Parts: sequence; C-alpha cells; structure tokens
Amino acid sequence: MERFAIGADLGGTNLRAAAVDESGKIIEKVSLATRREQGREAVIRELSEAIKGISQKLAGPRVLAGIGIGVPGIIYLQTGMLRESPNLPGWENYPVRSEIESLVGSSVFLENDANAAALGEKWLGLGKYVNSLCMITLGTGVGGGVVLDGKIWHGVLGMAGELGHIVVAENGVACPCGGWGCLETEASASAIVRRAKDLLSAGRSPALAKAMEEKRELTSELVYEIAKAGDASCREIFQSVGRYLGIAIAGLVNALNLSLYVVGGGAAGAWDLFSPSMMEEVRARSFIFREASTRIERSVLKGDAGLCGAAYLPLQAGAVGQEVQA
Amino acid sequence: MERFAIGADLGGTNLRAAAVDESGKIIEKVSLATRREQGREAVIRELSEAIKGISQKLAGPRVLAGIGIGVPGIIYLQTGMLRESPNLPGWENYPVRSEIESLVGSSVFLENDANAAALGEKWLGLGKYVNSLCMITLGTGVGGGVVLDGKIWHGVLGMAGELGHIVVAENGVACPCGGWGCLETEASASAIVRRAKDLLSAGRSPALAKAMEEKRELTSELVYEIAKAGDASCREIFQSVGRYLGIAIAGLVNALNLSLYVVGGGAAGAWDLFSPSMMEEVRARSFIFREASTRIERSVLKGDAGLCGAAYLPLQAGAVGQEVQA
Repeated sequence: MERFAIGADLGGTNLRAAAVDESGKIIEKVSLATRREQGREAVIRELSEAIKGISQKLAGPRVLAGIGIGVPGIIYLQTGMLRESPNLPGWENYPVRSEIESLVGSSVFLENDANAAALGEKWLGLGKYVNSLCMITLGTGVGGGVVLDGKIWHGVLGMAGELGHIVVAENGVACPCGGWGCLETEASASAIVRRAKDLLSAGRSPALAKAMEEKRELTSELVYEIAKAGDASCREIFQSVGRYLGIAIAGLVNALNLSLYVVGGGAAGAWDLFSPSMMEEVRARSFIFREASTRIERSVLKGDAGLCGAAYLPLQAGAVGQEVQA
Repeated sequence: MERFAIGADLGGTNLRAAAVDESGKIIEKVSLATRREQGREAVIRELSEAIKGISQKLAGPRVLAGIGIGVPGIIYLQTGMLRESPNLPGWENYPVRSEIESLVGSSVFLENDANAAALGEKWLGLGKYVNSLCMITLGTGVGGGVVLDGKIWHGVLGMAGELGHIVVAENGVACPCGGWGCLETEASASAIVRRAKDLLSAGRSPALAKAMEEKRELTSELVYEIAKAGDASCREIFQSVGRYLGIAIAGLVNALNLSLYVVGGGAAGAWDLFSPSMMEEVRARSFIFREASTRIERSVLKGDAGLCGAAYLPLQAGAVGQEVQA
C-alpha cells in the first residue's frame, strides 16, 4: 500500500500542513493564519486539527508513515520542548511535541524549521545528489541547518545549525541572541529594513523616502524593489548582505568542506542583488572554495522545503505506522 | 598477538615517529630534526627510515596494524598529495603518501596534522568520553580538526577542519590563505609575535624592549613570560587572542552544538592568560553555550596528540597487517 507522511510548519505567521508521498510529491496542502493572539493552546489545536483532517482524508487507501513538524526556534530534541522562539513570543518552555501528540493521537517528530528546510533541500532540492549540505534561511531572522551524510546534524542537545549566529562583524549590531554582529543582525530581512531606516534618517535615498510618503510599508521586498529600480544606496544594502553572507559561508566552507551551501528563505528573493558580493567574498576568503568544486546556490524548493523536510523525518526514520522518536 | 601501530608527524621543525599499542600507550618514540635544506626527498627518506627502524625493532612478538602520518598543510585525501604547506615550502603537489609507501614498503594513512591531533584527543585525551569534538591548535599557524561521531570529518576533498581560517575580524590582517582577519592572523604564535613587534615600534612595552636589548629571541613564549611578569601591554595581546578564539568558538558552538572544544598547540601554553577573555566572549556570543553544557578546555595530550591520532588511523580502520586506504 502507498505510504505518505504529513509535514507541518508551525510558523509565526502561517500554519501549514501537507501530505507528501514517498517520492516527495505533495498530495494535499492546507495553510491557515497563525492566530497567535488566541494563545498557544488554540494555535496548537488548529494545527492538530489540520493534520488530523489531512490524515483522515487520505488514510485508508494509503498508510500514514508519520508526522513531522517544523518549529521556529530552539528545541530540546529529547523532550520536545520549545526552549524559545523569537517568532512565537510567550511559547518559552512549552512542551509542543507532547501537546500535539495528545491532540493528534500519535507520536510526531519535532524539528527546528530551518533544519527541516535543510533536510527538504537534501531530499528533493539542490541536495538530491549530494550527501551533505548547509542551508541558510534568510527571513525575519536567519536560520540554518546542517545535513551531514544525509541526516540533520543535531549536536548534543539538538541545537546545532544556528548559522544565523555565526559572528560576522566583530563589533556589529546587538542581536536578540545576546551577542552582536551575528549573521542574523547583518543579513536578515530585519537587517535590510533596519539599514533602510538608517538611509531614511540620513536622507540618503530619495526613492525610499518617496515610497514612505506614498504610505508603502517598509519591508525588505520594498527595499529590493527600489534597489532594482536603480537606487544606489539601497543596492549597497544588498551588497552588504552578500558580503556578510560570504564571510559566514567562507568560514563554513573552511570548517566543513561540504560540496553544497544553499541560501533560502524569503529574503533569498534578492539573490541577484546580493549573490555577486557574496561569491566574491567567499572566493577571496576561502582557499578551499578555490580548490574544491563547492556550489553555493539559491534554494529551488522555496517555501516548501520546510514542509517537505518535516514530512521526510518519519519517512527517513523508516517509521511504519507511528513510531516513537528516541 | 599484541598489535601496535606507528604514528608519525612530518613537522616543519621535527620529524617524530612513535609506536603506540592498542590501549594508546607509547612503546617507542624517536624524534629527529627536519633537515628541510636537504630537500624533500631526503626528509621523506629520514622519516621512512625512522618508521622502518621502529617497525623492525617491535615486529615479531607484536603485529604492526598499520602506519599513520600527520602532515602540516592541505592534503588531497584520495591521492595522498600534499596540496600546499606553509611549514614545508617547496612541497606543493608532492605525492607524500606514495613516496613514503614506496620507501617503507607498505601502505600508510596520510592525514592533516591538526586532524590527527583532534583524533588523538578523541581517542586518549579530553574526548575519551564524548563522540564529537572540535580541536584548535595554536602554533605558527592555527590548525583545526573536527571529529564527529568518533571519526575525523573530512568533507568532500579531505580539506575540512581548517578552523584557523574562520573569519573573526571582518577587516583584519592579511592571511597567507589569501583572506584576511582569519583566526590564524589573530590568534597564532605568529600573531602574538606580530603584535609584540607593534608594541616595540610604538614603544609601549619597556619590558619587551629590555628583553630585545638583551638579545633575546622574540617568540610567543617570550611575550608570554613578559606578560606573566606583569607587563600590561603584553597581557593585552593574550586578551585579544582569547577574544578572537572566543568569536571562532562561539560560531562553532552555534553551528555544531558539540559538547567539547579543545585548544592545543604550543601557544596553548598561554591558556591562563587568554582563556578568561575567550570564555567571556563565548558566553556572551553563544546562547547554545549558555544553554548546553559545553566544555572548552586545554589539550591534555600536548605534543603527543598528533602522534597518537596518526597511530589511531590504522587501528580505527580496523586494518589488519597492511590495509590499503580507499
């Protein structure tokens, strides 16, 4: 009988769940707004209902191999507790896994969302033909995932892959993590917006100022649009993003010598503007990059990498029916 | 019958070889000066003779399990070629493995010296009871080795573990690797000497100037000695070393979440002077360090980590007699 798995994404903005077959095809997908204001129990209930709905609809002719859920933030892998999440304030030390398990009535695999995206990229995306890769996701924050020999590298507590907190600017801007000059403070969508605000204060981008007068929302997409239209100051922001991404990736290439580094997440949409300075920086700073055939590419799965990777967790574990995670 | 392995270290200053039994005990050890001026063929011949001497002395009642050799520099693991070595100028693209193999008459395992040290530390040192660790060796350059799940992480070409070339100072000093602001340019013995020279030029360390008048050699050990005696400017050098080590280690903790990071190599002798600022930096910059019980410690094997790690290569591979490396 055909097997399928359910992958879900507990995002700060959207709840998504998808049924994915063993070939990686998405058979069914739902997306809901994350109504955070209703409280975490209500959010968990909605996500669990969505998962159960998909499961009931497809089970019968097909066998559910298991459920995987990507969660933004730091997870204690063994206990399934969310340690903290910048996108889900108030969820600190919340036992996400056991709460969902009791609502859906079966065990689930919990994973950091960027780790899930890295695994998805390994399974179905650019990583299909390699064993190991690093993924960096540029969103509100900067996430990361390291896949080594086909599996997510978890480290001792499951907290590995926090590539957004590699130090790239010795004396950089303060980061929510407590550090400063992290990749996240220099290359996230929030960093792009922060730098755009600096331009506005300094009166250095008339085009941006005009967009503000037109009451447009200041987002990284808007900054990209204005940069694309030729605004030199806004273009510099993306050159800087590329430079810092390059510093982080050069260090990863030198430390791990993998064959593939993938950049994904919403702000990866600005690839054409930041990748030239990124590649230049990596080439200059990594002799291993110059020696070895290292690929640094933009994610091809885009938004679905995390969902697919979450679904792959039970498939990879070879779970038949519902298997309890060690 | 008791098995033993031979571990050797092809250093820029010394050639060393040791017979190590399966428990990690060094049964026999020789050390020779590396007479680089005689040319690479002569150096390889001397090392091979030393290896053969130990082998012949001990074989008979014992079985030689294999030979492992640590080499400073970048190795192409599959071909056994030395790509380049800052400590062995003129050895670029030299087929070290096959040259030694033809002289000793059996196959050998070739490994980067810092990788070998990391494996030695895993086998017999601080890493005895953990599965994974990072090792950073502070010498003329800064080497590194990453051991994951008990094995050296090689990456695609065997070049992984170049932790000395993680970027720690965005706009730092030029590095022989072609980059700038690498850990190596900020925390190696050479960096300590460079900074001491800066102090002398600026007339900022009377104690150091006095030592120069006494015709003492300007080494990192001398700078340490003067710092220990209370010279504030020299102490600052070690605080800076610690700070940059902390930046690199914080990034590694955030990326890999291992339980152990080991600092070794000659300049690790200044541990008491650089470790406070190193620990402070890691604590401030890594929330995973603050969450997880991560150990950052000074190597206990000191100079023998590399020899023992090299000897462990054939033992770990389960080589019986002489096994050819894939």
